[in-house]
Amino acid sequence: MKIFIGADHNGHDYKDRIATLLRKAGYDVIDEGNISIDPDDDFPQFAGRVVNKLLAEGEPDSKGLLICGSGQGMVMAANRFKGIRASLCWNLDEARASRNDDDSNVLCLSSRYLQPEEAESIVSVFMNTPFAAAPRFRRRIQQLDQLG
Amino acid sequence: MKIFIGADHNGHDYKDRIATLLRKAGYDVIDEGNISIDPDDDFPQFAGRVVNKLLAEGEPDSKGLLICGSGQGMVMAANRFKGIRASLCWNLDEARASRNDDDSNVLCLSSRYLQPEEAESIVSVFMNTPFAAAPRFRRRIQQLDQLG
Repeated sequence: MKIFIGADHNGHDYKDRIATLLRKAGYDVIDEGNISIDPDDDFPQFAGRVVNKLLAEGEPDSKGLLICGSGQGMVMAANRFKGIRASLCWNLDEARASRNDDDSNVLCLSSRYLQPEEAESIVSVFMNTPFAAAPRFRRRIQQLDQLG
Repeated sequence: MKIFIGADHNGHDYKDRIATLLRKAGYDVIDEGNISIDPDDDFPQFAGRVVNKLLAEGEPDSKGLLICGSGQGMVMAANRFKGIRASLCWNLDEARASRNDDDSNVLCLSSRYLQPEEAESIVSVFMNTPFAAAPRFRRRIQQLDQLG
């Protein structure tokens, strides 16, 4: 399964660590940068690249992963796109709920307020939780893309 | 200052509590529902109402507040709109960062994974933190609305 991953300068090291974890678990990880730590890079660039690739080249179960300092810029940017449901998760319950209830297809993380091990555990739960697909959940997801 | 607030069934009680807090602090709180606890209501309805009112009737410093069980549905829905920068905050540092760095104008909260007192503290920090307006922050915000 293809996973598209991106981060700005604040998220760079977490990105590389999570990419390694996912490759070991057998995922096909496509790194959309940044490839080095550049304090002047801008999070919307990496959100745009990851989301555009996910929408254009992703398989049905493919996911995106985006990391910046607070995670907030990434969740703002990714949710600009129809068909994207980006969640910002800080614990395992939120990762589970965002998959189970909302069929989230992009996980955003904060490098500043999560330890690397916490981020890795959240990624694992996110990747391994299916969408529950209840009628009320499907209805709300359909409503999402009628907004904006 | 006008504050537009909305919640689904999971966030209803937090909404009423936070509206009371904000009114006591002197804000003009406009409640966009839900006005009762209806387990069949859908979070995108309330996100849409709050954001459309904020964009149409808000003053320059007006804010939106949205609450659902995990907060994830609300942050997906609100960020569908150009000009909206919705953050999902679980601690005071995130509230401060989302205002300081990203000029967030909509705060989303999880009723399930925050205690009421935590939610109130996050709202207070969010309301009282100005945007730092550094050139790099302004540049990234401009890029946000070129996405999607």
